[in-house]
Amino acid sequence: MRAAMYYGNQKVEIVDAPNPAPAAGQVKVKVGFNGICGSDLHEYYAGPIFIPTEPHPLTGQQAPLILGHEFSGTISELGDGVDGFAIGDRVAVLPLYYCGKCSRCAAGNYNTCAQFAFHGLMADGGMAEYTVVPVGMLHKLPNDLPLELGALVEPMAVAYHAAQLGDLSPGDTAVVFGAGPIGIGLWFALRGIGIDDVVVVEPSADRRSAIRHLGAEVLDPSEADVISKILERTDGRGADAVFDAAGVPAAVATGLGCLAGRSPFVSVAIYEKPIETPLISLILGESRIQGSLGYTAPDFEAVINLMAKGHYDMTGWVTTVPIGDVVTEGFDALRDGRKIKVLVEPTA
Amino acid sequence: MRAAMYYGNQKVEIVDAPNPAPAAGQVKVKVGFNGICGSDLHEYYAGPIFIPTEPHPLTGQQAPLILGHEFSGTISELGDGVDGFAIGDRVAVLPLYYCGKCSRCAAGNYNTCAQFAFHGLMADGGMAEYTVVPVGMLHKLPNDLPLELGALVEPMAVAYHAAQLGDLSPGDTAVVFGAGPIGIGLWFALRGIGIDDVVVVEPSADRRSAIRHLGAEVLDPSEADVISKILERTDGRGADAVFDAAGVPAAVATGLGCLAGRSPFVSVAIYEKPIETPLISLILGESRIQGSLGYTAPDFEAVINLMAKGHYDMTGWVTTVPIGDVVTEGFDALRDGRKIKVLVEPTA
Repeated sequence: MRAAMYYGNQKVEIVDAPNPAPAAGQVKVKVGFNGICGSDLHEYYAGPIFIPTEPHPLTGQQAPLILGHEFSGTISELGDGVDGFAIGDRVAVLPLYYCGKCSRCAAGNYNTCAQFAFHGLMADGGMAEYTVVPVGMLHKLPNDLPLELGALVEPMAVAYHAAQLGDLSPGDTAVVFGAGPIGIGLWFALRGIGIDDVVVVEPSADRRSAIRHLGAEVLDPSEADVISKILERTDGRGADAVFDAAGVPAAVATGLGCLAGRSPFVSVAIYEKPIETPLISLILGESRIQGSLGYTAPDFEAVINLMAKGHYDMTGWVTTVPIGDVVTEGFDALRDGRKIKVLVEPTA
Repeated sequence: MRAAMYYGNQKVEIVDAPNPAPAAGQVKVKVGFNGICGSDLHEYYAGPIFIPTEPHPLTGQQAPLILGHEFSGTISELGDGVDGFAIGDRVAVLPLYYCGKCSRCAAGNYNTCAQFAFHGLMADGGMAEYTVVPVGMLHKLPNDLPLELGALVEPMAVAYHAAQLGDLSPGDTAVVFGAGPIGIGLWFALRGIGIDDVVVVEPSADRRSAIRHLGAEVLDPSEADVISKILERTDGRGADAVFDAAGVPAAVATGLGCLAGRSPFVSVAIYEKPIETPLISLILGESRIQGSLGYTAPDFEAVINLMAKGHYDMTGWVTTVPIGDVVTEGFDALRDGRKIKVLVEPTA
């Protein structure tokens, strides 16, 4: 079968990989679409970072391995002992392996398990015609849901999880920094949980245009005084939650300045290095910086439910490319800002 | 009456000030003791910072004014319409003026009112034989409570308020960075709310010695690998809350590394400038940095109740000096690390 194999820094090749078979408790999925994540870009241009170069303790795998952790597909084979799923079922996959034993797993926060592994980073993933996953990773999709949307469940769940940590109520005001896929996902998630007053801050004209066409109100931080605008909008109170899906120092400093008292600045970004943070802003309003990482199963279910209601719109920000173009029209296009979200189609 | 008058940077003089009279709704307090706060040091050596140089919107006052916002005393005169207090009552004073109208005040968080003013920074304060305060600022002290302890209610309430934001339960582990007055207050407050496993981190040998004599377990961060020690102590889980009463970059970086998942790093420090903060530490455990500012009335009442039970011990860290020595044995001694907490006695 065709697969996008990661060998190391700037070395991903389309190879003919062995077609995997499901062991007991596993299912084989014929992949519909697999999204390219920011972490895939980090692995390609700056990695290996998360991809192990010696056997991973949970999966036993190491590079070279097949990329891809954001995918949807159709069940094509059931391993022994698999109940509740049938061949032909359409599924999204929650691609997380975790230890199940540590204090974080015990508390239900397995998304923060210190030993976590991703299917597609620490084990062969979904940028292939087929992949094999434990049945516990599966989430059923409605029959009429496009598999392109199904491949977006994972990144949209990242955003939905972060939106929940915003601790918002209807009538509140939220600000989202960054209109990449996670920022777009936050805009959908916040409206999905009843928050109508959402302002997005994004310096790129292309990204501003894309999210504006989805219906969002957008500020250009190179032109607008964002803090003043948010204070005006909220009668001086400040935003009830701010979300950082940009991960740059300017977003942190400006975002903290937008916050109402006792409110969260939710970080759903990967900060490559420590950031000069004006912590005094937190003190004066007793506000907080809250980290958000990944998702758990309820986030997947919530996103799928919203998708089933037609809540997510792929217009203008999602592009599909055949697997053979993964480097030039995938990684390079995303790095250069030519595209916002790219889905790879392994069978195209 | 004698008073410590702030004229400006490094200019505080003991003067003969007019003896104030209480207006309606005010009481006149004969000051027992008035503590020197870190903010007083900032005003003296680096100010004016909070002390207004034009009339403050809430108090109408500006420099020169009488310092002192941590004080206890005895009521010596009642203004018209004052109920519930009598001449001779021993009191501590919650020295905060707030607007009462903004969204933060409306939510009960008047400690974060953007217009706040302190009695002793934006209005004549307690470093004087007498001071006049609104009756709403008063908290009664038990008759047998030493007025030295009464003057510590304010800083101990700062620490108690922060301890509450730690969101801890009995059996949890807490780490406190800094063993100055607020760090010591955190140690007392945490034990007062049932948290027995508290580790204090302090680089100064004198401060380590002082808090160790009170019964605390202390680490020297220049010798111990603090993060490893805390992880060992908690079976790899990390601390359930970390408190920063140091306000230096090393405490922030080390403290975030000590945190258990989904736990707070409570900042009760004044950060003079932005700090290089490894926000990625928050992401990986979905933890948070939580600001803490001042106190509200329930914090004062809780501290007074604990003091009435003999919970606070002044041995080895509190020194009393006559008002005439406020600069040499107060400000200078604190700046030079010769003392930990200084109470000024206006009548000595």
